[in-house]
Amino acid sequence: MLRRRYLVAYDVRHPQRLRRVSKKMEGFGDRTQYSIFLCDLTRADVGDMKHALHDLIDSAMDRILIVDLGYPGDQKFEFLGRRHKLPTIGPRVL
Amino acid sequence: MLRRRYLVAYDVRHPQRLRRVSKKMEGFGDRTQYSIFLCDLTRADVGDMKHALHDLIDSAMDRILIVDLGYPGDQKFEFLGRRHKLPTIGPRVL
Repeated sequence: MLRRRYLVAYDVRHPQRLRRVSKKMEGFGDRTQYSIFLCDLTRADVGDMKHALHDLIDSAMDRILIVDLGYPGDQKFEFLGRRHKLPTIGPRVL
Repeated sequence: MLRRRYLVAYDVRHPQRLRRVSKKMEGFGDRTQYSIFLCDLTRADVGDMKHALHDLIDSAMDRILIVDLGYPGDQKFEFLGRRHKLPTIGPRVL
């Protein structure tokens, strides 16, 4: 199954929702920064992820940005300061 | 001059450095989330931005992720919850 790489960044205002979103995202990809994940996902995975996140956030207050970065390996990532390893395998849906 | 769109996300541990990085980034693009900017930059702008950020961070503790998203308009952005307008013009180098 073809996977595309997605960057998912969340801005969740309430600590409890934040913990839940953070925990949920750990099953879909790699945490690159505190509230940013890189995920290699199939179209079905993306649907599951969005559905799960919709249930966890307050749509009036919280914001989740999902950027389709194309196929893994196409992107140009650069780090200043501390490096972070990029995802090498698909999602770990627990 | 050709501009490409970049997502810049920073994870800066010290409040004073955080403020300075945040302030500096306002001259290069649009804040999409608290510590995430979308910037339409020329190659020269990118060099200036990286140079300026290098001077502001502690490379052992802080991390800045720069993702080359390609030409503006190519990307697929999606928001869950609160939307955010995407940049329409180039950088505001003040």
